[in-house]
Amino acid sequence: MADEEVVVLGFWPSMYGTRATIALEEKGVKYEYREEDLSNKSSLLLQMNPVHKKIPVLIHNGKPVCESLIIVQYVDEVWRDKAPLLPSDPYQRARARFWADFIDKKVFDAGKKLWSTKGEEHEAAKKEFIEILKQLEGELGDKPYFGGERFGFLDIALITFYSWFYAFETFGNFSREVECPKLVEWAKRCTHRESVSKSLADPKKVYEFLLGRIAG
Amino acid sequence: MADEEVVVLGFWPSMYGTRATIALEEKGVKYEYREEDLSNKSSLLLQMNPVHKKIPVLIHNGKPVCESLIIVQYVDEVWRDKAPLLPSDPYQRARARFWADFIDKKVFDAGKKLWSTKGEEHEAAKKEFIEILKQLEGELGDKPYFGGERFGFLDIALITFYSWFYAFETFGNFSREVECPKLVEWAKRCTHRESVSKSLADPKKVYEFLLGRIAG
Repeated sequence: MADEEVVVLGFWPSMYGTRATIALEEKGVKYEYREEDLSNKSSLLLQMNPVHKKIPVLIHNGKPVCESLIIVQYVDEVWRDKAPLLPSDPYQRARARFWADFIDKKVFDAGKKLWSTKGEEHEAAKKEFIEILKQLEGELGDKPYFGGERFGFLDIALITFYSWFYAFETFGNFSREVECPKLVEWAKRCTHRESVSKSLADPKKVYEFLLGRIAG
Repeated sequence: MADEEVVVLGFWPSMYGTRATIALEEKGVKYEYREEDLSNKSSLLLQMNPVHKKIPVLIHNGKPVCESLIIVQYVDEVWRDKAPLLPSDPYQRARARFWADFIDKKVFDAGKKLWSTKGEEHEAAKKEFIEILKQLEGELGDKPYFGGERFGFLDIALITFYSWFYAFETFGNFSREVECPKLVEWAKRCTHRESVSKSLADPKKVYEFLLGRIAG
């Protein structure tokens, strides 16, 4: 498809924004990335996502698509010829959607308790967070990717949290290698992909960003 | 498709469970409905949705699909020949998914404040709830259905809240006819469909159920 204008409004540490760029990279779609200052949102962001006023927004030929998992599905449906992201089987599609929704409902909310709680509450938060990782590891099983032999929708949904793992692990005082070694191997496999390595924020920088936010 | 076994685990006042049965009715799929006692969940529910332990669950030939909007998409993808629910155009699909997600993020959380708050907080809750309705009415515009000329995915996502409107309106002390007349007309149109009228709980019974819960 020629003469297409594809713009992504994002914010560098966002695990949601990064999903949009990985999906576009997988499809080989050219796009312009615009970094948003969330303390001073652009008029374009407010105009394109008036309901939530949040990144990411994918703007395709002037029309906005909002919410990261909806963006990934949209990208998959528009650029169908290359790198299918969702499985073709309806049951497997439902399953991928279920676990992506699980990630959105659980991972960040549980993760942020790792730096916002102390004492017993922190111990409970750590236990909860590790349990979530183990549930995800259970869904991965012995497959190379959540998508099976192929990197796909659910891989994109989760790998963008990779940038946050150093922070989760450090604040949580646990070792991901000990707790979820298969997930660590999966993440390495994903980060070897150019689509992923180009898009992900540096985990140490995310940690520093977070320290700044906590202090600030 | 013959010899298929389709079971829905639901709970009569649930706006989420009802989405599954409306989708199946639209497609003309025969199914068995099993009412769950949420204070004493069946071993089948716990086995079929071990992650969230929630209704609705659609069990299709022994395999579970969980989360209501995922179920509706699954039903649409498996029984493709009749009554398409999601639009065929990717942009319109993304838009329908966006507003369905908006409903799930906003309507119930805002609605329950109508019976759990007092005074100024209640006034703010009422204002917030009416604003959400107006946003949805804006998306409907002058179309007969959210799906355009055809009843579809987003119509299913919202109409199941109809059973709760008497409660929202009574606790919120507002008139839906005054605040969102187009949405009222749309709802009437939807409830004339057999798929909807067969599935929806009686609004007065939902109100009484809620009074019992509040008292209880």
